[in-house]
Amino acid sequence: MIDANISQDDKKFLKIALNLARRNVGLTGKNPSVGCVITFRDIIIGRGNTQLGGRPHAEIMAIKQALDHPLIQEKREIQEINVYITLEPCAHETTSPSCAKAIVNFGANRVIYLATDPDIRTNGKGKSIMEKAGIECIETKMYEGENSDILKGFLKQKKTGLPYITLKIGSSINGKIATQNGESKWITNSLCRKRVQLLRSENDGILIGKNSVFVDNPRLNLRDQYESIENKPIFILDTNFEISGFGNLSIFDNVEKNKVHIITSKELKYKITKDHKFFKEVSIEEVDIEQGFLNMQEILKIVSKMGVNRLLVEGGARVWTSFLKIGLFDEIVIFTGNKIINDSATSCFNDFLPLDARLGDFPTLTLTSLLRWEDNIEAKWLANS
Amino acid sequence: MIDANISQDDKKFLKIALNLARRNVGLTGKNPSVGCVITFRDIIIGRGNTQLGGRPHAEIMAIKQALDHPLIQEKREIQEINVYITLEPCAHETTSPSCAKAIVNFGANRVIYLATDPDIRTNGKGKSIMEKAGIECIETKMYEGENSDILKGFLKQKKTGLPYITLKIGSSINGKIATQNGESKWITNSLCRKRVQLLRSENDGILIGKNSVFVDNPRLNLRDQYESIENKPIFILDTNFEISGFGNLSIFDNVEKNKVHIITSKELKYKITKDHKFFKEVSIEEVDIEQGFLNMQEILKIVSKMGVNRLLVEGGARVWTSFLKIGLFDEIVIFTGNKIINDSATSCFNDFLPLDARLGDFPTLTLTSLLRWEDNIEAKWLANS
Repeated sequence: MIDANISQDDKKFLKIALNLARRNVGLTGKNPSVGCVITFRDIIIGRGNTQLGGRPHAEIMAIKQALDHPLIQEKREIQEINVYITLEPCAHETTSPSCAKAIVNFGANRVIYLATDPDIRTNGKGKSIMEKAGIECIETKMYEGENSDILKGFLKQKKTGLPYITLKIGSSINGKIATQNGESKWITNSLCRKRVQLLRSENDGILIGKNSVFVDNPRLNLRDQYESIENKPIFILDTNFEISGFGNLSIFDNVEKNKVHIITSKELKYKITKDHKFFKEVSIEEVDIEQGFLNMQEILKIVSKMGVNRLLVEGGARVWTSFLKIGLFDEIVIFTGNKIINDSATSCFNDFLPLDARLGDFPTLTLTSLLRWEDNIEAKWLANS
Repeated sequence: MIDANISQDDKKFLKIALNLARRNVGLTGKNPSVGCVITFRDIIIGRGNTQLGGRPHAEIMAIKQALDHPLIQEKREIQEINVYITLEPCAHETTSPSCAKAIVNFGANRVIYLATDPDIRTNGKGKSIMEKAGIECIETKMYEGENSDILKGFLKQKKTGLPYITLKIGSSINGKIATQNGESKWITNSLCRKRVQLLRSENDGILIGKNSVFVDNPRLNLRDQYESIENKPIFILDTNFEISGFGNLSIFDNVEKNKVHIITSKELKYKITKDHKFFKEVSIEEVDIEQGFLNMQEILKIVSKMGVNRLLVEGGARVWTSFLKIGLFDEIVIFTGNKIINDSATSCFNDFLPLDARLGDFPTLTLTSLLRWEDNIEAKWLANS
């Protein structure tokens, strides 16, 4: 458990495992994106990461590669084999043996990993299996910030049953997201819009309010260099099921209809009949209404149940403000374009505290990343829990 | 005139001259802050910069130091003396000889400088004086961005007769400068507030609206590590001369009364009598009213006439918006704190274009600097002229 047991070579191989884990963030479904490196006499003989959809796991991929490695085939000495993983190997068997057992079967001297798996089916059991087989197991907190960033959706899901929530905002210098007449194309530059594609690729689902859908008519698909990635499920908040009147939305030309989930009020059930043109194509989810708003906790449970560990909230102001109000967000990524717009244009947030609130009552965030994209800024703010 | 004539050593000495010039930015009155380095056989024998208030000039300081240098006293060969200056030496004589003549008298082989002096009393004449004396004169555009930043107040003044105008804003993540009840202490952190002290030190004067003075009651003095610097003249825009009712303002405890200028409407002249308690202590300037606002051009001419080449506009929203409206600003420095505040709190800008303005109608700025101060951000935006 102590970093004194970790050599400079170990650090290097853990970093490579971390880079492997980064590759499939947002593409491994309910499973965490994990990286694994296997070395023999400090030479890498196997690399693996969690595959698309979540299986096979990183360890299985790395073992498969290692088994084919010439060094291993000539002479195999367990004493000289180390395994580096970004998460404790799983202990639960499904159709294939658990990763912990697979490592035991492959043979290894040491296994070093960066975090205990919070999944109750593993949570220390992976370590036990390997230790019983005589493998030295070391957990280190090295690279904790980076690894948490990769695992954050999985970790939050396991801890709270809710997805990790990122609010994504594109605004002018003075915090406006559209002009008075709803124009927002483009407040931010093309580099920021590429970063939005990356954000979409790293998240498991996209949530958006019906106003944004009707006014901006966004495509919400993955494009450009992310085109080969499957589109993410889209959740449209539409209390009064107004979308039924908008058949020509760009979403339906760009995202598969069966990936679109419309979340509406239970009270409207009577309005939605089997004859409705949307009924057979998109999924409709119904939640309770609370003070005029769809119940956010219910929504997040629905989103979660569909395997979304990381949820990107693309707007608009009413939706972002809802998340701010209930304190149910984890981070805010703000892209700031280089324009100043009239004050009575649309703001990124509405009021969310009583009008007589004191300065100290308003939420204070932590700046975790600040990037410059030509004349635009990308800032990532973490909610203080 | 070509950079091919400039050696690596020349570059190094010009950079040192530039660093010398940087030191007294905001402290040289109407004069530009200039740096000068004199070398003998590529050894620095004299350094100088424009002194507080603007005199002596940098060249005179450097020559004075060089004359005392042992190397020069032993053996003086003009062929081996180079002079590096950030601006063409002046040609006009006042109580002392011009800098160009002083350089001729000192003796030099080459003079390299970074910009022609736009002052009509010099503007090439400094160069002529030196060339006639057989000195090789080279003007290079090297370090142009850095040097323009140091000279920007002087250059704008000479070109347009107006000061270089910096709007300084401290706002929340969503562009708010105070809560609904006017609370603004502190939206930004102590590091940003130290940067404001630096900004004040680098400017020649501070302009502020009466609302900000009454609501925030700022001190507007130079303090902490800038304490030894003389306070800057303060210009308070107060259309209806309401300040007469506010005797207990912090400004008067921290800034000398004779440095405070209240700019008010000509139409109010009858209201201000010699008996008024402020009349003898502060200066009162009267300008025309245009559509309910004090005439900004007149104000800037008054400010300019008082020797202010660099004007820092500290707020509030109404004043910043006036500058935005008439396009009479050069840069905006925004300090962004890490809070999100209600939308109906005070914004940094009001509306400044018609409500049906298109996105393309709004001003687009250039981001020239982006700094992080713990959880706060400092961004410098340049107006696109």
